[in-house]
Amino acid sequence: MTDTDSTGTHSTGMVAGGVATRLYVDAPLQAGAELALDRDRAHYLKQVLRLGPGDAVGLFNGRDGEWRARIEEVARRGVRLRAEALTRPQAPDADLWLVFAPIKRQRIDLVAEKASELGAAAIWPVFTERTAMTRVNLERLRANAIEAAEQTERLSVPEIREPVTLGELAHRWPKERRLLLCAEAGDARPIASVLQEILRERGEAIGPAAILVGPEGGFASAELDALSKLPFVTAVGLGPRILRADTAAVAALACWQAIVGDGARRPPQR
Amino acid sequence: MTDTDSTGTHSTGMVAGGVATRLYVDAPLQAGAELALDRDRAHYLKQVLRLGPGDAVGLFNGRDGEWRARIEEVARRGVRLRAEALTRPQAPDADLWLVFAPIKRQRIDLVAEKASELGAAAIWPVFTERTAMTRVNLERLRANAIEAAEQTERLSVPEIREPVTLGELAHRWPKERRLLLCAEAGDARPIASVLQEILRERGEAIGPAAILVGPEGGFASAELDALSKLPFVTAVGLGPRILRADTAAVAALACWQAIVGDGARRPPQR
Repeated sequence: MTDTDSTGTHSTGMVAGGVATRLYVDAPLQAGAELALDRDRAHYLKQVLRLGPGDAVGLFNGRDGEWRARIEEVARRGVRLRAEALTRPQAPDADLWLVFAPIKRQRIDLVAEKASELGAAAIWPVFTERTAMTRVNLERLRANAIEAAEQTERLSVPEIREPVTLGELAHRWPKERRLLLCAEAGDARPIASVLQEILRERGEAIGPAAILVGPEGGFASAELDALSKLPFVTAVGLGPRILRADTAAVAALACWQAIVGDGARRPPQR
Repeated sequence: MTDTDSTGTHSTGMVAGGVATRLYVDAPLQAGAELALDRDRAHYLKQVLRLGPGDAVGLFNGRDGEWRARIEEVARRGVRLRAEALTRPQAPDADLWLVFAPIKRQRIDLVAEKASELGAAAIWPVFTERTAMTRVNLERLRANAIEAAEQTERLSVPEIREPVTLGELAHRWPKERRLLLCAEAGDARPIASVLQEILRERGEAIGPAAILVGPEGGFASAELDALSKLPFVTAVGLGPRILRADTAAVAALACWQAIVGDGARRPPQR
């Protein structure tokens, strides 16, 4: 529903009443702040979006809200912008992580993109017994997550965490963070029931949570047994069909946001 | 979470206690029925899966349940199988359609795949004012939906309907079928609230429903106004982020299945 195309380029359509392009930056944002974009982004603004001096873009950094900025100079080596006015104050994200076993390239890109679109605060790869991949390109995950955040009107980008093994994950897990284990085998309660119960018990104070999705082929049964015994783990079911890993991640994140997350909020009016 | 890889080939891993490969067929299935697969599928079974005479596969046709079949003959021109025993009786699907504006190739493939994984009974392309695509490859949509159904343990495949314009859709719509319009602009109630209300009112008898997702760029405001006035339409919101069309489709289908659909059922034990 955004103006992106399937190759994943940025929106070039004007958003009604607002600015056409949103960019994530690291630098602090405040009125009058001057920012420089690196060569890649400069090229993108200049050659792909055909923007030049005087054009407006939106900037966000995950801390200072969204700012309207004006392009001041476009040069071969970079672009200089100046932040003009706050257009949206920073709002807190749902404290929801996605923990998932790495899958092949095209589908892991999708997982990062969709997790970012669906408001995950962090994305944490975990290696399990049946995980076929042996490494993860974190820079690539991060680039996909940033691009999706820019597209989706988020004011933040998900943190991309260093991969761990499932054993390390259990060992290092912050005990107060509830972990919903998407389990296609063994006992599991329907995800909607679990989420509605959390809502009844906690009301607005949902607390930190995470969704764990296993690899293609699922968790080994010893892994499922060990996970199920951890006090912070709740096994949840996503219905009678065996979902692909990327589908399971999107489905679980969507249900979480709809039932206990920010599903009642509306997109910003531009 | 299945044994598929990112190129979308079929599972070759043995499912515990069951058969490795599930294939959708058109022909009737009953004990002793002899079936012939066409050249493409014969090649696939023989060359990709390396199956031969005596090997078992699972067959389903959307009507007669799932059958274990045995390969009897593998020849250059085709493969002959014989259905042996019913392994799962046919179960009704949720009566849920996905109506969506066609998007570019890679993402429309995903929509067909995910809608099938999430149990949609029909997929219906609709052309709207801002739909950039002018044609849809229905055969390709159907192939993606079938492959996903084979992977996901479904006993049916979604019907792929002939594309219509939004005007025709409204005109031809079966009035008793509730249409949830995913609206990123204008008034809309949170999807979880709408679904929980349906559940309270209807209990087990949810009745026919559909989810409508607009194109990249969203519906035109005149379209949104016209749709909102139709008695069978309910505008629903998916939270504060502007989701890509494919993400919105997956999120809405997942919420529907989790809250009013078959989310409480479990995958078959193999």
